[in-house]
Amino acid sequence: MTLLLEVLDLTGTFVFGISGAIAGVRHKVDLFGVLVLSFAAANAGGIMRDLIIGSIPPATISQWQYIVAALLPGLLTFYFYPVVKKLNHPLLIFDAAGLSLFAVSGSLKALEFHLNPLAAVLLGILTGVGGGVTRDILVGEVPVILRTDIYAVAALAGSSLVVGGYFLGLPSVALAVMGGALCFFIRIMAIHYHWRLPIPKVHE
Amino acid sequence: MTLLLEVLDLTGTFVFGISGAIAGVRHKVDLFGVLVLSFAAANAGGIMRDLIIGSIPPATISQWQYIVAALLPGLLTFYFYPVVKKLNHPLLIFDAAGLSLFAVSGSLKALEFHLNPLAAVLLGILTGVGGGVTRDILVGEVPVILRTDIYAVAALAGSSLVVGGYFLGLPSVALAVMGGALCFFIRIMAIHYHWRLPIPKVHE
Amino acid sequence: MTLLLEVLDLTGTFVFGISGAIAGVRHKVDLFGVLVLSFAAANAGGIMRDLIIGSIPPATISQWQYIVAALLPGLLTFYFYPVVKKLNHPLLIFDAAGLSLFAVSGSLKALEFHLNPLAAVLLGILTGVGGGVTRDILVGEVPVILRTDIYAVAALAGSSLVVGGYFLGLPSVALAVMGGALCFFIRIMAIHYHWRLPIPKVHE
Repeated sequence: MTLLLEVLDLTGTFVFGISGAIAGVRHKVDLFGVLVLSFAAANAGGIMRDLIIGSIPPATISQWQYIVAALLPGLLTFYFYPVVKKLNHPLLIFDAAGLSLFAVSGSLKALEFHLNPLAAVLLGILTGVGGGVTRDILVGEVPVILRTDIYAVAALAGSSLVVGGYFLGLPSVALAVMGGALCFFIRIMAIHYHWRLPIPKVHE
Repeated sequence: MTLLLEVLDLTGTFVFGISGAIAGVRHKVDLFGVLVLSFAAANAGGIMRDLIIGSIPPATISQWQYIVAALLPGLLTFYFYPVVKKLNHPLLIFDAAGLSLFAVSGSLKALEFHLNPLAAVLLGILTGVGGGVTRDILVGEVPVILRTDIYAVAALAGSSLVVGGYFLGLPSVALAVMGGALCFFIRIMAIHYHWRLPIPKVHE
Repeated sequence: MTLLLEVLDLTGTFVFGISGAIAGVRHKVDLFGVLVLSFAAANAGGIMRDLIIGSIPPATISQWQYIVAALLPGLLTFYFYPVVKKLNHPLLIFDAAGLSLFAVSGSLKALEFHLNPLAAVLLGILTGVGGGVTRDILVGEVPVILRTDIYAVAALAGSSLVVGGYFLGLPSVALAVMGGALCFFIRIMAIHYHWRLPIPKVHE
């Protein structure tokens, strides 16, 4: 379980770091600003999760692997941006991968700390969306979670699958793969086909 | 005391949730975005308070009643917005109610965790204003606390009354009612009569 | 060590408080809004640090000295703004002083809580930049850390000197003075001579 959590967290840290760095490059901040955004996007969700479940100090601050995983994508993105930007919607794709990995790791870690199922689903969502929200607020944009594509719903689906399967006794690794894949699939489909949830009717 | 805190927190969660949902509807976010804002406005203040006083995991994350109290107003507001918006200044009124309830609950919970009087007043203010600040930052507005009507002053008055009365040995329920009423009254009067504090004179 | 930390923290609180109050005056918020910004700028970094290292409740909330040190500069700045604004770049200078003091105190406190050297450097940076980022987000500006002058780099230099010297067994007071001076010097030089780090080349 610990190894699985580490793999999920480190990979999530890395891909969210790329999304933060891309946001930085687009806003023309300097090298250290790119590293700050890379670090913030990569670690904000995990730090929030760890503070809330009482895992102090957060692994993301106290272990060097996480720090490397958060800063390396900043350096790479900064110097190889022409490669990154050839992807279609690169920021959204790395953001979707980070969302999926952290939604799964957040739920699993909350279960490991004996939180109840509903709390574990919520922490999965919070861990998944925390990095992107922090990144967007820092660069002064409306957080991606509030724009009109399906976002938190994807994290909800992934987290719920993980938590439901956990209480059915299914193996954690299989749940992590399936939950992450489900979240990523929903999010990418939503981006590609512009899936949307209902928008409120306001007659003002 | 515990029951009183729960009643205050749950009611505050519900009304702040409405304020978050209203902000979401006005910014035309989708259903899940409204739920996210409802949840954030409802729980941010309480989570900050619980992390600071060391009540981990925060009740708002770990108990299902709080989650229902935070999401239900989002659903109701989303589907019955025409009813809500017939109120005069609906966002400000529900925000004022949440401010009052959380200012009182924040102070009482801090006292229960043996913080000193000054810290209890501060935590009352922080708990009261945390939800509204988070809501406003998420939708990209200047937080209501910084706009020119009396806001944090109202929370200060309510918290101070609660903390002062507590050390005089008055019963918690009476203090909660009086402190909450005082905060709500000041805030509503400030909205209605445009009460303002002095603004600095800048000659630039 | 405890006394040294208190002196650093209290002085940092005071000067960051001034920077918050200046931001408030410039944005024409009322007296209480100025106090809110003064408090937020002064204490956000320290609160983040204390939550992450597990020093709960944070000293900034529970001890009256910190509360006075955070609110007094708000009052002074509000009523004596004409004096403050005669300084060249007053907000940036007080911000640089706060950055330096908190970078040093953040590193030292993290070391005292037995975090590893890399984490201590990171916490120095986080404590240093937390107040300014919170202040800037509250007033709706892009955080100073992301604008193009050298900022987090200065905190990194100060923190690294402190942490490196600590493991060489040098006395804490000397390290604090040297680390703080180094950070302040780099930051002020960067402001004065418009030193900049490379900016990414985007061909979009």
